[in-house]
Amino acid sequence: MHKLSTIVELLGVPLPSGINGEKVIRGLNTLTRADGDELSFLATDKFVKQLPSTRAAAVLVHRKVRLAGVEVPAGVPLIVVDDADLAMAKVLGLFAPPVPRPAVGIDPLSRVAATATIGADCRIGPFVVIGERVALGERCVVHPGTFIGDDTVIGNDCELYPNVVIRERITLGNRVIVNAGSVIGTDGFGYRWDGRQHAKIPQIGTVVIEDDVEIGSCACIDRAKFDETRIGRGTKLDNLVQVGHNSRTGPHCIMAGQSALAGSVTIGTGVVLGGQSAVRDHVSFGDGAMLAGCSGAMDDVPAKQVVSGLPAIPHRQMLREQAALRDLPDLRTQVRKLQEELEALRKSLATTPVA
Amino acid sequence: MHKLSTIVELLGVPLPSGINGEKVIRGLNTLTRADGDELSFLATDKFVKQLPSTRAAAVLVHRKVRLAGVEVPAGVPLIVVDDADLAMAKVLGLFAPPVPRPAVGIDPLSRVAATATIGADCRIGPFVVIGERVALGERCVVHPGTFIGDDTVIGNDCELYPNVVIRERITLGNRVIVNAGSVIGTDGFGYRWDGRQHAKIPQIGTVVIEDDVEIGSCACIDRAKFDETRIGRGTKLDNLVQVGHNSRTGPHCIMAGQSALAGSVTIGTGVVLGGQSAVRDHVSFGDGAMLAGCSGAMDDVPAKQVVSGLPAIPHRQMLREQAALRDLPDLRTQVRKLQEELEALRKSLATTPVA
Amino acid sequence: MHKLSTIVELLGVPLPSGINGEKVIRGLNTLTRADGDELSFLATDKFVKQLPSTRAAAVLVHRKVRLAGVEVPAGVPLIVVDDADLAMAKVLGLFAPPVPRPAVGIDPLSRVAATATIGADCRIGPFVVIGERVALGERCVVHPGTFIGDDTVIGNDCELYPNVVIRERITLGNRVIVNAGSVIGTDGFGYRWDGRQHAKIPQIGTVVIEDDVEIGSCACIDRAKFDETRIGRGTKLDNLVQVGHNSRTGPHCIMAGQSALAGSVTIGTGVVLGGQSAVRDHVSFGDGAMLAGCSGAMDDVPAKQVVSGLPAIPHRQMLREQAALRDLPDLRTQVRKLQEELEALRKSLATTPVA
Repeated sequence: MHKLSTIVELLGVPLPSGINGEKVIRGLNTLTRADGDELSFLATDKFVKQLPSTRAAAVLVHRKVRLAGVEVPAGVPLIVVDDADLAMAKVLGLFAPPVPRPAVGIDPLSRVAATATIGADCRIGPFVVIGERVALGERCVVHPGTFIGDDTVIGNDCELYPNVVIRERITLGNRVIVNAGSVIGTDGFGYRWDGRQHAKIPQIGTVVIEDDVEIGSCACIDRAKFDETRIGRGTKLDNLVQVGHNSRTGPHCIMAGQSALAGSVTIGTGVVLGGQSAVRDHVSFGDGAMLAGCSGAMDDVPAKQVVSGLPAIPHRQMLREQAALRDLPDLRTQVRKLQEELEALRKSLATTPVA
Repeated sequence: MHKLSTIVELLGVPLPSGINGEKVIRGLNTLTRADGDELSFLATDKFVKQLPSTRAAAVLVHRKVRLAGVEVPAGVPLIVVDDADLAMAKVLGLFAPPVPRPAVGIDPLSRVAATATIGADCRIGPFVVIGERVALGERCVVHPGTFIGDDTVIGNDCELYPNVVIRERITLGNRVIVNAGSVIGTDGFGYRWDGRQHAKIPQIGTVVIEDDVEIGSCACIDRAKFDETRIGRGTKLDNLVQVGHNSRTGPHCIMAGQSALAGSVTIGTGVVLGGQSAVRDHVSFGDGAMLAGCSGAMDDVPAKQVVSGLPAIPHRQMLREQAALRDLPDLRTQVRKLQEELEALRKSLATTPVA
Repeated sequence: MHKLSTIVELLGVPLPSGINGEKVIRGLNTLTRADGDELSFLATDKFVKQLPSTRAAAVLVHRKVRLAGVEVPAGVPLIVVDDADLAMAKVLGLFAPPVPRPAVGIDPLSRVAATATIGADCRIGPFVVIGERVALGERCVVHPGTFIGDDTVIGNDCELYPNVVIRERITLGNRVIVNAGSVIGTDGFGYRWDGRQHAKIPQIGTVVIEDDVEIGSCACIDRAKFDETRIGRGTKLDNLVQVGHNSRTGPHCIMAGQSALAGSVTIGTGVVLGGQSAVRDHVSFGDGAMLAGCSGAMDDVPAKQVVSGLPAIPHRQMLREQAALRDLPDLRTQVRKLQEELEALRKSLATTPVA
């Protein structure tokens, strides 16, 4: 619960004239769902049509949104901001309740090895296992049911949510967040047919997660066959993402839900992979490349290229092909007609006494 | 182990004449795999050809199946029923062993907050964590290793299988089943590029799971950015399903294995999403719409529409395009031939002394 | 750390002349990433171009790789082997550190039923639950946080990594590995619309995992409706794989990351399913069939057939269609041109004083 005056102050914009800054705001919601105690927002022209009927307590409006001719409900103040997304993020931060965490210290119902090093102000919950020679930085939070294997090294200010598994000899940087149920460091999927069976190839490498990475729930990042699997600084992985052995992401990448890197994939800086997309093994993506949702990249993608489809090709080409495919039944009809016309023409010429 | 007479009584059909109702049935199986102690079933004409060689103790046959001319093995009674699927479900229920559950009460090796309210006859297993001010209804079962975060509210008769994570401030209705390893309430996947990094956007909303929902294993349902993510009454989610922040399903939807809703998706009543299908963010599905397996919906789908493909289009159109695509190499050949014929015709005309 | 002489001895090849066998090798890496203490490898002609600039301590080279004209960096011994993959696997085995495991015995912070039978030399970690009448073979390892339900039977030398869930009445053979976070034995996804709701169909069957199977992390294998779901001997499942109720794999299959079998699928011996591929319910694959990554099989696939696409068709046909699709915008242009030419020809004929 925050006063409207607190909110405009946070955003560094003036309170619209005639508006009561003492009005108490309970939360945020969309234009259509907000009630009289909730703040809403209007970031693009697309949703302008929802403005007249909103019951929001006030609306943050992006400066660029065209309001000419739009009827604003009486008593709903519009607060114009330079960047509605940024303003929203700030207001969400204001309203964000604190994450509940275990108390500072080591829960008596956990199992922490005597050889582990636990930094100052860490919070270790019940049913946690921390292995031999683990080094945990300062202010880390290890929620209940989480497992950290021997010799793993974790930086400062990391948060491991419940039932996470970080296997042995893994490295996490600072401020890494791993959401519930994810697994880091499983053996890479490597076998060799020995004439009788798929023989397991030892996976002796490791996983390195750099600073400021967040990993969603039930995501899997496999241990390298040798050397390392690496997630670059500031990269964000969504739920149910798969990263195969020896794959490497650059910094600031985005992997949306259920996307996957097969083995030995390399993606550059700021690469974006849509939901349910996949990259074949040994494929590389240049900096800033993008793979659309549900697409599968089978070949290297140059920097800044946007690709889509299965196999993924440049997105504009895919759109052209899709359009052509939409017309394909028509095209078949046209070709059949052409064949008939040509045949008719030939026949008429054959029966014409030309010479 | 049940007598055949018990089974026909349960189904409300007569024991076929000359059949021994004392025959003991050990279980159910398909026509090809059933042995002499197992009951089998024949629900569609498709499997009639398997009937002659079955070794089943008896066969439940849907009234509509055409048996004319089919040889039934001697001594295999056919029990004709109006609805073979319903009959099967009833018989399966008869044979179903009880689910093993922790004892009534709170296991001494769990960690239940003093401020939590636990309803009558709940069963809380070992290594369970129940947070501050959690309200758990009556007769709930919390299997080992499951985590319930602070302020979460759960109705009556819910069952949370082992190693489930329900984060803080989540609401579950009555008779909700969450299978092992699923995670409800992870922060939605939301970041904003601040010029230097993907800054995390606080996700301050919640998740509401209505009555009679079942959620498979290793499924993820994310917390809303604000307001709520909602799964409607009686909706069923399979394993490894992803539901992004602020998405909402109507009642009685089906999401098959590995299907996904990106963020802010809305699907109506009775929508069916096939396995590995996905719906793009901000897309809506009308009541009774269907998305085929492995398909990706990029645009709104009207009520009752069946769509498939990537991007998903009406299914019948997709089939036409697929058929045309199958013919495309042929069509290319035809066009080449047409070009040649036209060229030949032109040449012959040019050499013909017309005028 | 191993001497080069130890490595060549393990591989059964001679130490190249003039090379110091006392050289200490610290690990393995690719040609481009290896430093002076690491061994590298060259298995195919594709990577020959990386050889001149490698800084590896030595390189294992497949006998077939063509080195004519390639400049080898001074001081980098090439060790020629008959099978570089096999050689690599052997060397990886040499360097593989042991998996950290709980001590032999039953951890006092676990909960093992008095009626369970635990074989000799088992290792049961903390926060493990082992249910009533479970039979665990010899030398099994149950890592922390893992749950084994009542009446489940597990063979010898199995390894269950942290936070695995094996539900009740499941059977695992010998030498089965289940990686962290996977769930075996969840009820199959089966409901029947009863006119009012999706009524749950009891799933009374089981799951059988045969000898030498390995299952990745966060994979789900569902309990059969009746009878069993079965994973054949030596089959390997990657992370996030889904196996629906009553599906059966033959021996020695490969299911890559995020691939799926819907219900009642049967795949033969040595079938390979690529990453993110899916097989529709009731579909069969013959022995040695393959489904490409990201593809969806909607119909039966005969033995040894390679299929791809959505819906999957024979791979060569798919490639032809893809090529034709790439040309489709061109083809449209050609057809339009043909129409114009034919029209022009007709017009010229109409204006030609033929008769």
